[in-house]
Amino acid sequence: MADTQPLIAVANAGSSSLKFALYAVGAGGTLVLQLRGAVEELDRAPVFHARDAAGRTVAEQRWTDALGHDAALAQAITAVQALLPGMHLIGVGHRVVHGGAAHDQAVLVTPALMAELEQLIPLAPLHEPHNLAPIRLAWQRLPGVPQVACFDTAFHRSNPAIAQMFALPQELHDAGVRRYGFHGLSYEYIAGRLAELAPDAAAGRVVVLHLGNGASACALQGGRSVASSMGFTAVDGLPMGTRSGNLDPGVLLYLVQQRGMSVADIHDLIYKRSGLLGVSGISSDMRVLLHSDAPRAALAVDLFVYRVVREIGSLAAALGGLDALVFTAGIGEHAAPVRARVLAQLGWLGLVPDAAANAAHAPCITQAGSRASAWVLPTDEELMIARHTLALLEHTA
Amino acid sequence: MADTQPLIAVANAGSSSLKFALYAVGAGGTLVLQLRGAVEELDRAPVFHARDAAGRTVAEQRWTDALGHDAALAQAITAVQALLPGMHLIGVGHRVVHGGAAHDQAVLVTPALMAELEQLIPLAPLHEPHNLAPIRLAWQRLPGVPQVACFDTAFHRSNPAIAQMFALPQELHDAGVRRYGFHGLSYEYIAGRLAELAPDAAAGRVVVLHLGNGASACALQGGRSVASSMGFTAVDGLPMGTRSGNLDPGVLLYLVQQRGMSVADIHDLIYKRSGLLGVSGISSDMRVLLHSDAPRAALAVDLFVYRVVREIGSLAAALGGLDALVFTAGIGEHAAPVRARVLAQLGWLGLVPDAAANAAHAPCITQAGSRASAWVLPTDEELMIARHTLALLEHTA
Repeated sequence: MADTQPLIAVANAGSSSLKFALYAVGAGGTLVLQLRGAVEELDRAPVFHARDAAGRTVAEQRWTDALGHDAALAQAITAVQALLPGMHLIGVGHRVVHGGAAHDQAVLVTPALMAELEQLIPLAPLHEPHNLAPIRLAWQRLPGVPQVACFDTAFHRSNPAIAQMFALPQELHDAGVRRYGFHGLSYEYIAGRLAELAPDAAAGRVVVLHLGNGASACALQGGRSVASSMGFTAVDGLPMGTRSGNLDPGVLLYLVQQRGMSVADIHDLIYKRSGLLGVSGISSDMRVLLHSDAPRAALAVDLFVYRVVREIGSLAAALGGLDALVFTAGIGEHAAPVRARVLAQLGWLGLVPDAAANAAHAPCITQAGSRASAWVLPTDEELMIARHTLALLEHTA
Repeated sequence: MADTQPLIAVANAGSSSLKFALYAVGAGGTLVLQLRGAVEELDRAPVFHARDAAGRTVAEQRWTDALGHDAALAQAITAVQALLPGMHLIGVGHRVVHGGAAHDQAVLVTPALMAELEQLIPLAPLHEPHNLAPIRLAWQRLPGVPQVACFDTAFHRSNPAIAQMFALPQELHDAGVRRYGFHGLSYEYIAGRLAELAPDAAAGRVVVLHLGNGASACALQGGRSVASSMGFTAVDGLPMGTRSGNLDPGVLLYLVQQRGMSVADIHDLIYKRSGLLGVSGISSDMRVLLHSDAPRAALAVDLFVYRVVREIGSLAAALGGLDALVFTAGIGEHAAPVRARVLAQLGWLGLVPDAAANAAHAPCITQAGSRASAWVLPTDEELMIARHTLALLEHTA
């Protein structure tokens, strides 16, 4: 690596972790992963680790006291400087869950932007503050290095107006009670990846299933988002590891009025005690459930598959049919039995599964004659953030 | 009519109205409508009216004071006796919104059943008490006449377990927080009607759209319900005249936590101020919106059509494809432009609309070569209740 090679950092901050990745910027704007790591369990016994592009651990450190985001960022910056001597940071891309109704792409961080994003905190009180904190810290600690905010909502701003609405009075819509959609950085990455592998399908009607601990689905028309399963918040849509997904609003009224639950109780219920964990009573982890003999583990998997299939139908309706289906994120990339069971119910959409390819997690998991195709594509939100960051730096240079 | 001709009464009680219908039981168990009527605006200035089978008004009366269900029922019984001399009432069928998880068919009313249904009041506090009151009254005023409870939920008990679940902890499911589905008497009637008109399609995969002031959709496989859009309550699923339908549960938490709304406010919002009325700001009535030039009227119609189309896709996924689509209830039977717009987006499911047939509200509104067919079939929940009542009387005689 040349002494002057520029470097882009990506920060993905959650409530108790800060994940990061570092990319060298090569000739022609190529991005080459250098390091990927995290500081985790920030509020309990923090662990820092970093791996190189080949997955080898190159740094690890543990603390017994809670660390806090500020110290975590300092630690990450110090480690990076030690591990990548001679490279210089030209920009930091931050994952920001909520960009509101206005932002349809990544933007350079300015004081005005920060003020604007703070206004969005009530819309995502659990995530947005954690996303904004490292931006402020990086700004202080890395003076002169441009910071870029990349929004999980931005990719869905291409949705038609009716896909961004609830059937609520206009004043609530105007006040921000809308369907924003999330996981947009993942969907945008997948849209690009599918266009490389199967340009014809990517130009058509595609449903992407981002099935991780958080799970959602997105309808792409010619690579642009036209609908998605998450709505105002990231609790809507598919059932997830611990989140309920879609829920009759009457259930919430009943839990308050008839069972005396507080709003905090309900928040805890639908975000932390529902989904795969709530139904199985065993685990939020699909791997555990797939290996369990317990009937309720099987029931949780059944329900997950059923809801994914129903959502595919709903999104196919938004698209007027289906040319390709993509599985991504943890469950999507690794849980072949889940994919097999979803595909087994989609013959009516013209999908003919290739069982061997699915078992091997091959990119294409439908047979050659299949009218619609299905794919397993690993997502890479960090690389998408790095690309946005670089593009914005080049654009504003 | 013979002096001894038996008569079946049907009672459909709401919060401020009591609708009724009377059927003569002919040879071989045929049911011939004699009268249909209602006492409406019970809490304000009650109006009683009755029409014969040809739609001619045969009785009408108005009061200036609130009447109450008890007096309304007395009025209805007196009127019936005067209008249908010489016929004798052999049973009364009552529409009951909620039958809980246990009842998969109509049942004879007993003290034990009433006690059981009272336990369900917390699940449907707005409807169930109004449904139970006339049963008690009829019991007192018509001693010896069997009363039959016909549930809007019963038809959906054939749904697979996963279609009756939310992704919530098991204890809530066990406590009754389930997807019950509603409009079951309408769907059951339509399933039978389609079997008469198009037996092949009715034996296959059918989606029925009950689009009235309350709106829902149901997937039928071989005439049995396998999924529906309403869940725990009748506010879920499609947007309706004034109901929101499906709503991200995070919206409700936000409205309480960030906007300080009470649960009563939210109830009022999602039941009475949302849906077509909320989005348009003009009317809950599709007829008014279709005739309006206001952009927000058009937006409300657009959203309604969009959500119906998405729901059809979701239900088609539950069925593994689609053989027939049926429109029923007020909007479904009369709003040709809504049907046309829904069908225009379903070419991918093999539906080829017949514009002239649709404009004429013809039973079949797809072209002869259409791979899947679409139908306009008037529903008749009262007749379905009368049939259940008669069948149960014959069975228990």
